[in-house]
Amino acid sequence: MVSKNQIKLITSLQQKKYRFANQLFFAEGIKVIQELLKSNFELDHLYTTQRDFEEVLAAKKSIIDDTDLKKISALTTPNSCLALFKIPAEKIIKGSGLILALDSIRDPGNLGTILRLCDWFGINQLICSKDAVDIYNPKVIQATMGSIARVNVNYIDLISFIEQTKLPVFGTFMDGKNIYKSNLPHEGIIIMGNEANGISPELEKMIQNKLTIPRFGNLQKTESLNVATATAIVLSEFRRG
Amino acid sequence: MVSKNQIKLITSLQQKKYRFANQLFFAEGIKVIQELLKSNFELDHLYTTQRDFEEVLAAKKSIIDDTDLKKISALTTPNSCLALFKIPAEKIIKGSGLILALDSIRDPGNLGTILRLCDWFGINQLICSKDAVDIYNPKVIQATMGSIARVNVNYIDLISFIEQTKLPVFGTFMDGKNIYKSNLPHEGIIIMGNEANGISPELEKMIQNKLTIPRFGNLQKTESLNVATATAIVLSEFRRG
Repeated sequence: MVSKNQIKLITSLQQKKYRFANQLFFAEGIKVIQELLKSNFELDHLYTTQRDFEEVLAAKKSIIDDTDLKKISALTTPNSCLALFKIPAEKIIKGSGLILALDSIRDPGNLGTILRLCDWFGINQLICSKDAVDIYNPKVIQATMGSIARVNVNYIDLISFIEQTKLPVFGTFMDGKNIYKSNLPHEGIIIMGNEANGISPELEKMIQNKLTIPRFGNLQKTESLNVATATAIVLSEFRRG
Repeated sequence: MVSKNQIKLITSLQQKKYRFANQLFFAEGIKVIQELLKSNFELDHLYTTQRDFEEVLAAKKSIIDDTDLKKISALTTPNSCLALFKIPAEKIIKGSGLILALDSIRDPGNLGTILRLCDWFGINQLICSKDAVDIYNPKVIQATMGSIARVNVNYIDLISFIEQTKLPVFGTFMDGKNIYKSNLPHEGIIIMGNEANGISPELEKMIQNKLTIPRFGNLQKTESLNVATATAIVLSEFRRG
């Protein structure tokens, strides 16, 4: 059984202000939940229609039925489990190595996919501008496939951060240098822009190293790559050596 | 005004069997519709809440209001226009150059993003196994951003196709050769697998060139890349020279 108050709480967590007020977020699906349980995230409570979470104390889990799961799930087709976790305090920024910075990313699926790419390419630090989509948005959590447990994410004023950094700063533009012919370092900040508008003009001024992913189509009509696929190519180039 | 019969027809086109029966599909949003209008796709009818499609004959367009648009749209937040286009006859497969083949791709967003990548990287031929998501699915059309107008797509029996080809065949696996250290040709077939299961065992047997995108994380816990981001990296590697 899930009480009315619990349903109210959990569904409210689909909104950022209630996640912030309660310092809780939720994840759905066995894979993501198991990754989070193995990590430093602290479980608040687990709701499951199956009895296969032996690692979770009885006091912290409730066996529920599909009808109840449907009431608390954010998915059209609910999975078999949903878990509430505590939002951890923001850790300090790791200021060395390769850092990925996202300027006003708005799409939760893109942010989740990019987090997964960071994990794959060993980027431990992701920085988002304050207007970017919240990392604890359920759609982001869903798309990360658990990578959120292994990448440090901070929301900061990107302009001030770039102003004070000593690392080289990179960004992708339509008129940059061919990324395939550029020498890319092991340390630096890579900035990726908003889905519709790219990197903001204020930030653009601060980027010494403008890069371009060359286009190979004949008709030259494709306006841009999706930001997640562009990030995949850029991170691959920085890591391939 | 949109008649009840028109609403019934258009909403039915969200399902593959009705698209097939009527040989029609629909697209939403100015950008995608304009790309399709400029291409060889034949317009059946345009519904718009704005009067900015001067290139379309009056007999082929209806100015409608937001309430009517909401009735025919497949989007939660409808755009300002929706257009029906005729499904063209499948063209013959272009059997040279780089060809991308998708084995059982199921997610419409992934297929749309991959089509956009083909367009960017000048891959003119995309081949899908017969059980792959339909290219005329509204969510695919939405994610292509108009690239569907420039990439030839065929649905065929992949096994027979690979059996008869003389081109070298490539695929990504967990245990393949480091893609960054492989010599990649200008001609060949690149196979990408299903979201959950990768490339099917029958097809795997027919792939001479197994490639791997190396993973750079320390913990080695990220199981896989999303198929669209993996495709981005693979196509980038084939084209970068």
